[in-house]
Amino acid sequence: MPIVQIDMLEGRTLEQKRELVKRVTEAIVETAKCPPEAVKIILREMKPEHLGEAGVLRCDR
Amino acid sequence: MPIVQIDMLEGRTLEQKRELVKRVTEAIVETAKCPPEAVKIILREMKPEHLGEAGVLRCDR
Amino acid sequence: MPIVQIDMLEGRTLEQKRELVKRVTEAIVETAKCPPEAVKIILREMKPEHLGEAGVLRCDR
Amino acid sequence: MPIVQIDMLEGRTLEQKRELVKRVTEAIVETAKCPPEAVKIILREMKPEHLGEAGVLRCDR
Amino acid sequence: MPIVQIDMLEGRTLEQKRELVKRVTEAIVETAKCPPEAVKIILREMKPEHLGEAGVLRCDR
Amino acid sequence: MPIVQIDMLEGRTLEQKRELVKRVTEAIVETAKCPPEAVKIILREMKPEHLGEAGVLRCDR
Repeated sequence: MPIVQIDMLEGRTLEQKRELVKRVTEAIVETAKCPPEAVKIILREMKPEHLGEAGVLRCDR
Repeated sequence: MPIVQIDMLEGRTLEQKRELVKRVTEAIVETAKCPPEAVKIILREMKPEHLGEAGVLRCDR
Repeated sequence: MPIVQIDMLEGRTLEQKRELVKRVTEAIVETAKCPPEAVKIILREMKPEHLGEAGVLRCDR
Repeated sequence: MPIVQIDMLEGRTLEQKRELVKRVTEAIVETAKCPPEAVKIILREMKPEHLGEAGVLRCDR
Repeated sequence: MPIVQIDMLEGRTLEQKRELVKRVTEAIVETAKCPPEAVKIILREMKPEHLGEAGVLRCDR
Repeated sequence: MPIVQIDMLEGRTLEQKRELVKRVTEAIVETAKCPPEAVKIILREMKPEHLGEAGVLRCDR
């Protein structure tokens, strides 16, 4: 019953999200040995001003 | 001091969110035995293209 | 399809967790109008040295 | 390799977020003894109707 | 810069976790188009008494 | 009302956690302009086998 949360920068297309969810689910099913129905994935998009790395906002790089 | 995070699909009305927060808080206070002031709830809404189930986006079902 | 995460201090009994999950699920089903099967709840327990409030660890209060 | 998630009410300026990320990173680097590059911070903003405290939405206070 | 959190029931071997992290990272790199170094994955294991589904703890099924 | 979650590798002392919570709270209070009582921090410790970077578990580096 894996619950997956993925936070990433905005900018991916619907087609990319569709492939992402398909591929990540397959990866979990095949390695953790659970049925596909058990895998839930939440995608969250961040604006560049909401990601900090090494103390600097991504929008300032 | 329970901290609650609820991720759900968008589409609930303000009145539903109001009732949700009231009822979930009561449920926690009565079972976990803590004061109401200790319960914090964060609601997050997802678009159907941000939820994956069994490898498929909700918007594709 | 609500996904619920609850972080709370350790110390509740199994019976309390059982009631907590039952009651929180009912509260969500009745207010957000979703089937019970759609509600997933993750409980996480914290040690008092892992909760900070107003800049002070709970274990130091 | 600390991963930090901060959920807060909307309304901070870009300059406040810039300072927040800088200062929180410094605080972690100096106390947890890790290089700045290892610290990732995700900021998330909530609307007042998405925060519940003591069973009441912030927008209803 | 995807940050991934995976909550799952305890019981996977180290070899399964190793494969899981490898495969999920590949899936994200190839679909979201980011370098492997950008992908961070946090695994968290749950006891069966910490997962609620349809209002029932997993340990009670 | 910032809620902060920090996931980091295990191995910090109680004194380090105490300073971490104190310093991160100060950083948030001074930049986001909120009272100290409003800042809640959840610390979570990871084993090296539960952190993946660039597709490799930390325990395998």
